[in-house]
Amino acid sequence: MAQILTFIGKGGVGRSTVAIAAAHQLAEGGQRVLLASQDPSPVFGQLLGQPLTTTPQAIVPNLWGVQFQAPELMATLWDEEVKEREARYLRFPILHTVYGQELGIFPGMDAALALYTIRGYNASDAYDVIVYDGLGDLTTLRTLSIPETGGWYLRRFRKLILESDLGRTIAPFIQPITAAVLNFNWSWENFAEQPSQEAAEMLEEGTIALADPKRVLAYLVTTTDASATAIAQYYWGSAQQAGISVGGVIWNQTSPTPEQQTAFAPLVQTELINHGGDWRSLVGKLPNFGAIDHIPQALTIDVPARQVRAFLPGFTKEQVKLTQYGPELTIEAGDQRRNILLPPPLKGQPVKSAKFQDHYLIISL
Amino acid sequence: MAQILTFIGKGGVGRSTVAIAAAHQLAEGGQRVLLASQDPSPVFGQLLGQPLTTTPQAIVPNLWGVQFQAPELMATLWDEEVKEREARYLRFPILHTVYGQELGIFPGMDAALALYTIRGYNASDAYDVIVYDGLGDLTTLRTLSIPETGGWYLRRFRKLILESDLGRTIAPFIQPITAAVLNFNWSWENFAEQPSQEAAEMLEEGTIALADPKRVLAYLVTTTDASATAIAQYYWGSAQQAGISVGGVIWNQTSPTPEQQTAFAPLVQTELINHGGDWRSLVGKLPNFGAIDHIPQALTIDVPARQVRAFLPGFTKEQVKLTQYGPELTIEAGDQRRNILLPPPLKGQPVKSAKFQDHYLIISL
Repeated sequence: MAQILTFIGKGGVGRSTVAIAAAHQLAEGGQRVLLASQDPSPVFGQLLGQPLTTTPQAIVPNLWGVQFQAPELMATLWDEEVKEREARYLRFPILHTVYGQELGIFPGMDAALALYTIRGYNASDAYDVIVYDGLGDLTTLRTLSIPETGGWYLRRFRKLILESDLGRTIAPFIQPITAAVLNFNWSWENFAEQPSQEAAEMLEEGTIALADPKRVLAYLVTTTDASATAIAQYYWGSAQQAGISVGGVIWNQTSPTPEQQTAFAPLVQTELINHGGDWRSLVGKLPNFGAIDHIPQALTIDVPARQVRAFLPGFTKEQVKLTQYGPELTIEAGDQRRNILLPPPLKGQPVKSAKFQDHYLIISL
Repeated sequence: MAQILTFIGKGGVGRSTVAIAAAHQLAEGGQRVLLASQDPSPVFGQLLGQPLTTTPQAIVPNLWGVQFQAPELMATLWDEEVKEREARYLRFPILHTVYGQELGIFPGMDAALALYTIRGYNASDAYDVIVYDGLGDLTTLRTLSIPETGGWYLRRFRKLILESDLGRTIAPFIQPITAAVLNFNWSWENFAEQPSQEAAEMLEEGTIALADPKRVLAYLVTTTDASATAIAQYYWGSAQQAGISVGGVIWNQTSPTPEQQTAFAPLVQTELINHGGDWRSLVGKLPNFGAIDHIPQALTIDVPARQVRAFLPGFTKEQVKLTQYGPELTIEAGDQRRNILLPPPLKGQPVKSAKFQDHYLIISL
């Protein structure tokens, strides 16, 4: 399993430059590194000094590079997964008349396709680190938390269908059709398990990886410009809210004031100054991305103390909202929702109190 | 109907600053302007000098501002549209037990929700111009072309289901169930029309608006930095490929060289120099966004000459690919696909020749 390392921050602060330098630094340190860019334009290749293609190619020893192109990823996914799956389950497949090469791209597909592809590279065991140079904004955070969000939708709606009159009413009608068309039988009782169990396991696996800084780790990149630091702070909180560990902040081009440094405590802070914007001069000056012991945990659930603690830096009390609509707790902050599935002893318990203190939302059940 | 005006370019070049200045300039010129920001952080409000909320609020005479927050838009959409629609069609609605306030956000939802909201503001007739400060990259282009892409999926898959044995096989089973659960009857013959006709018309309407620079218009913003201009060129071609008119290029902070200017001919070029990065100093110095006569058309179909001409600047011949898989022509360029529905006399005709000349892909049928 590889570590996915990504850089987030305002556009123009030098995220791609830092990502390229990080990939080189890790490769020089002996790790097998894949540098993956979400920018489909020739610009990333120009910055790197070598054009990239949609399949990983060697750059220097231990370093490979790849550039995602959504239409091509879509065509591959369609032919290798969607059509294959349809042929496996359906007796009269119809999607073979639709070509992967004609499918249009909706917003969000780039992100989902990138995550799907990264998952494949991860599973290949060919790399120790995947440096993912994504859009570097909320899109990157939402992309990495697709398994967590997807897991929520799956368990919530599966439960809904199972418990609804509608589900029970239409099941006897759907059953013979699906049995005739698909190659497997199912009963109302095992509907929850088959075939959605396969998806649930994949999403669960992704959610576990997301919460582990050895598997998924983000670093903030910022200049000392007021907008850039405000965005970095906002993304810091947003990353925690998405369940993604933030390992540190990289100050690019200029040195922070003591106030700016304090705003990012307790993160490890690295200053990159007096360089001409060339990534070559930054190799060796970046932090040790393998050191993860200092990283604050995004979420802790203390069952004996009946307490949930969510670390949400970069937000004020007014920006954090806690609700309890369905069977789970929902935290809203940073333009994102996080649904917390409580362990059995706390499940379904009403919230007794909640306070926001020292960047922590502390919920007592 | 309002004009949707958006700014695209590399992060950090000053897109939001220009968007704010443009909104003020248009409002001072007497138009009713809505400034809509996709940035959910407090940074946009700091730049504007006034915090924004998720409902439009007055800033100065003729100018209103709004900031999109995906979770809130999602909750509104869920309660006002999804639940309402379910209640209208289903006898046993189940979604009322799911709360809009607990739904997680996937990548791409921000974009789709923004477009849905903009469509509502547009239909309200309360504004003459909607200045949309989106992510400014391919996401913005994909967002605006959702109706075109969506229209393609709808007509392609509707046709597929209608023509497939599978569709005909399962229709007699589905018909009684849907008739029992939904409040309307349908036959296999009118399946194509009801209820997908409603969606088809909405998407068609959006596609027509997209192709009209009086309705949707993008401007490039760039500095003279090599990466920024390369991205601007790439986005120029990508916008044409998405069917979006580009009105001009705004050079921010520094003056372009003659070579840089030539690379963006025949676009109207505006230079914004000697300003401290404050939008106030830019009001009145931006181009006339109402002047659209000079804008090259993205796509022309000449039926008598049996010719399709697609304007694709910013790409080399190698970056443009033409295919004809299904019943339509597919152009691939700039990480996007464009499926061209030919008018009846040319429909289904094989491509005789295609050449790429002076930024035009010229296809003869």
